[in-house]
Amino acid sequence: MLIYVAEEFSNTLNASDRKYLRFKTKGYKVHFSKKDKISRNFLKAKIVLGNIPPDMVEQSSKLEWVQLESTGFSEYVPLKSLKKKVFITNLKSFFAKQVAQTALASILAIYRGIIKTENLKNKKKWIGDPIRNSLSILENKHIVLVGTGSINKAFKKYIQPFQCKIESFNTNTKDKDLIKHLKKADLVITALPGTGKTTNFFNKSKLNILNKKCIFVNVGRGNSVDEKFLIQILRNKKIRGAALDVTKDEPLKKNSALWSIKNLILTQHSGGGSETEKSDKIDFFINNFKNFKSDKKKLINKVNLSKGY
Amino acid sequence: MLIYVAEEFSNTLNASDRKYLRFKTKGYKVHFSKKDKISRNFLKAKIVLGNIPPDMVEQSSKLEWVQLESTGFSEYVPLKSLKKKVFITNLKSFFAKQVAQTALASILAIYRGIIKTENLKNKKKWIGDPIRNSLSILENKHIVLVGTGSINKAFKKYIQPFQCKIESFNTNTKDKDLIKHLKKADLVITALPGTGKTTNFFNKSKLNILNKKCIFVNVGRGNSVDEKFLIQILRNKKIRGAALDVTKDEPLKKNSALWSIKNLILTQHSGGGSETEKSDKIDFFINNFKNFKSDKKKLINKVNLSKGY
Repeated sequence: MLIYVAEEFSNTLNASDRKYLRFKTKGYKVHFSKKDKISRNFLKAKIVLGNIPPDMVEQSSKLEWVQLESTGFSEYVPLKSLKKKVFITNLKSFFAKQVAQTALASILAIYRGIIKTENLKNKKKWIGDPIRNSLSILENKHIVLVGTGSINKAFKKYIQPFQCKIESFNTNTKDKDLIKHLKKADLVITALPGTGKTTNFFNKSKLNILNKKCIFVNVGRGNSVDEKFLIQILRNKKIRGAALDVTKDEPLKKNSALWSIKNLILTQHSGGGSETEKSDKIDFFINNFKNFKSDKKKLINKVNLSKGY
Repeated sequence: MLIYVAEEFSNTLNASDRKYLRFKTKGYKVHFSKKDKISRNFLKAKIVLGNIPPDMVEQSSKLEWVQLESTGFSEYVPLKSLKKKVFITNLKSFFAKQVAQTALASILAIYRGIIKTENLKNKKKWIGDPIRNSLSILENKHIVLVGTGSINKAFKKYIQPFQCKIESFNTNTKDKDLIKHLKKADLVITALPGTGKTTNFFNKSKLNILNKKCIFVNVGRGNSVDEKFLIQILRNKKIRGAALDVTKDEPLKKNSALWSIKNLILTQHSGGGSETEKSDKIDFFINNFKNFKSDKKKLINKVNLSKGY
């Protein structure tokens, strides 16, 4: 019995990580792939840890379970017509705290002038007092959360002490209703997954009714926002600012217009990161491995390839 | 009966502010000073709103109350030997929420890579994934708060959802005890007032025992930190970073070494600021003006010139 660790994840693991993983999966051999391909080891594997190319899943007759190291799994959706049963589990909720804190950090960085003073520091320029009346505090803000998953749940918990007015919506909300609330929002935080249903969800008509004080934050997937129009309203100062952890292109090309927008924070899809990410992922796998051994049906975070989330 | 509005505050007020202030203080004349000096108007004033030069207080026989527009009042301490009774009130607690949010914003900006990605954005440079393992989340951090006033009280409230271990100390804590806790701290937030007792409170021995993961935040007064030594430990990466809202020199000179320290946030004493600061100050004064009229003893935020806070 063999566990195949996919190239990308495997490459992040040092000697101790590998030892630990082997120790915790006794009874199984662990193969750390240097290059994902249909190898003899792969064809022997019952379990895959990490994100292998989706077509490899189809090529194996032994494979029973793939534990992804991501929340997103859109590239595996075509496998929904696969005849044999392979469980695919993801890291849903695993990144929620981290991403929610990146959202909060971005908002506070704008509200408390951290971006402004960092750029002044780069120029060794003291402004002092005149900075003050450009600042805001979080108290009593009107917040619209779009997406009712774990990220926005964590965000909601974090901002409890600030006594904000919080309203939650999802893609089932009627546009007419959502627009009514977006209009008044000081902060919009969207954490929608990357599915067909969410593509261009924040279209011109939804972005166009945001008000001048509004900060728009996307910590979901880049597909859900009309980026060109967002750039336009940021350039024309129709809204106060934006923070994008995710963008349509990743990596962002050198000539992307986003780089030059002043009132915009770009965190380069690092929102889920933390210094313990790798070891936390190993622990998540080990825990799910126990579930797998006792009863495959007990695996947690099984994805629904038909629904796409 | 006359209210004299000191030059610095007066200069921030527009026509509506002035009208509002006049309307709310009916029965009194309001003089908006363009230049603070012993003028006929000043000598008629019973009340001063704003920070006048301390020696002016001594020159007036009519003056009964000075409402400062700051929390700090160290420049007025020499007036403690003044024979006549002039009440001096400050804005204690008025800036607490704002300052505490600047502290939180600074910490999260380091933890979630906001400073790093802003500087990458300036270079139009995408790093992406490798940013992730340099990030942290706030959960379970060991936090040492120094200063038990309103700022750290607000900070404590704000970080409640993050389940941190929080310990509070003040200048009465024995050095030996404090050092024991500083050693283990992930975050040190100091919010000490600028008194003789706090000068160089964070001396070499207290800064030297901070650990490599520690972020040091000063939102009190610049006098309390051995800045030269802080620069040294930041340069040598003995600690993770620092955020100074206050510095010994303000404004900071162009040739200050602080400008070039990478793992340092400098918010230029803007921590107390907000877009409603001016109107909130006017409202605070109007409220205290009511107290003054009913009974001078009811004035809130009377400072103790002998104690210095």
